[in-house]
Amino acid sequence: MKKILIIGIGAGNPDYLTVQAITALAQVDVFFIMDKGAAKAKLIALRTHIIERFARAGHHRVVEATNPERGADNGDYRAAVDQLNQDKQRIFERLIAREMAQGECGAFLVWGDPALYDSTIRIVEAIAKSGRQALEYDVIPGISSVQALTARHRIPLNLIGRSIEITNGRTIAAGFPAGIDSVVVMLDAQDSYLKLADADLDIYWGAYLGTPDEILMSGKLVEVGPEIARVRAAARRTHGWIMDTYLLRKRDPHDGATVHLTANE
Amino acid sequence: MKKILIIGIGAGNPDYLTVQAITALAQVDVFFIMDKGAAKAKLIALRTHIIERFARAGHHRVVEATNPERGADNGDYRAAVDQLNQDKQRIFERLIAREMAQGECGAFLVWGDPALYDSTIRIVEAIAKSGRQALEYDVIPGISSVQALTARHRIPLNLIGRSIEITNGRTIAAGFPAGIDSVVVMLDAQDSYLKLADADLDIYWGAYLGTPDEILMSGKLVEVGPEIARVRAAARRTHGWIMDTYLLRKRDPHDGATVHLTANE
Repeated sequence: MKKILIIGIGAGNPDYLTVQAITALAQVDVFFIMDKGAAKAKLIALRTHIIERFARAGHHRVVEATNPERGADNGDYRAAVDQLNQDKQRIFERLIAREMAQGECGAFLVWGDPALYDSTIRIVEAIAKSGRQALEYDVIPGISSVQALTARHRIPLNLIGRSIEITNGRTIAAGFPAGIDSVVVMLDAQDSYLKLADADLDIYWGAYLGTPDEILMSGKLVEVGPEIARVRAAARRTHGWIMDTYLLRKRDPHDGATVHLTANE
Repeated sequence: MKKILIIGIGAGNPDYLTVQAITALAQVDVFFIMDKGAAKAKLIALRTHIIERFARAGHHRVVEATNPERGADNGDYRAAVDQLNQDKQRIFERLIAREMAQGECGAFLVWGDPALYDSTIRIVEAIAKSGRQALEYDVIPGISSVQALTARHRIPLNLIGRSIEITNGRTIAAGFPAGIDSVVVMLDAQDSYLKLADADLDIYWGAYLGTPDEILMSGKLVEVGPEIARVRAAARRTHGWIMDTYLLRKRDPHDGATVHLTANE
């Protein structure tokens, strides 16, 4: 039997590591580091820092592999992602087969939380189900960029008693969902928030969350949106890459009343 | 100036504590413990255990206060919650005024993540805005029960490229939302999942997540739903209370194809 740990290492800040993740890091024989290119060198450096600090000194190996790139989607995003995940699965399976001995523990370190917009769980599950490797695996949650965003802005994710939607740039570009007042958007490379003209929307935006380069901006979307787009483009030029997330929120019609009552108590 | 830390301590398992939360716990002069009644004695014991383990020995105080109960909502849930939060704000403000000296650091420990279905951020912000207390505050994220649920079931929260909705029992009872395939339900005291008859829904349910009493069940909703309701009722009788969360997911029509390709690779 080989054991794979899918460890959420939190969004950017090493202090987001949990006790559970730290304990897990100390049990790992082989760390698999999937390189996503020089542009994310800072993130890879942070991951290396975490391994050096928390892995058993002298008792672990680091194996680097190149993550496949997603091909052009030719209008079918889902097919492109499926192809990418099959490519990844082939690489992951080869790593597990060749780089781990029976009884050893291997780990994939995932930014944020492995459950949120990440395919590692899905891929490892498919390898385990294939039966070609005698494999057990476990998932360790981590602080996601959604949580880093709300904590750094010091705001609740939801309005009282109301729902939240977590979505991506492709979906929000089609319009703000009906019946929802709080929407988190991840993986938006196209500044899709600029397409939403609702005057009652606020935006809470964060880039490089949890890192020393963190940028936070918030305000009425119609006022601050274009400024966020400018700051975002400039930061992307400076760093060579950007990771950002934002919350869009309809202003709560009750809020005025609550604040009023509070101020006059 | 007084400083308030709103510290997310994760969902049940003390190992969900982050390095950031542990560092924060060691800076606190006064812990405010809001008692929610004997039914949650185990949760209060766990909180006390966290304080004893991580607070500065001999340099902190614990102040207990009784949380107000939500009154009957007379059909207006929002008004009842607003009233509850005003009652809480009055109590929190009195604690901050009477139990903290200038320059001291006080803390509220919040289960899971303070941003998710919790009013502490909202209340502390309202107190700070009132100007009656010279107050600064900070928010420290924690592993939420949503993340504990997906990690323990070892599943992704979203389908590939798709959105997620996080909602509550009151909302899901009105029907599964259109255009969404993954819905997390929190705070459902009424077994609302039993009202959903969609044959293509799976449920991933967890109670007492992260604690030694944890229960996990999953399967097709129409098959496993009634069994979850039985287990849930029995556990509630045994423990005197229950905290549970579940994910409802429409079965992915693509999944079969992916598994097929994988198995034949």
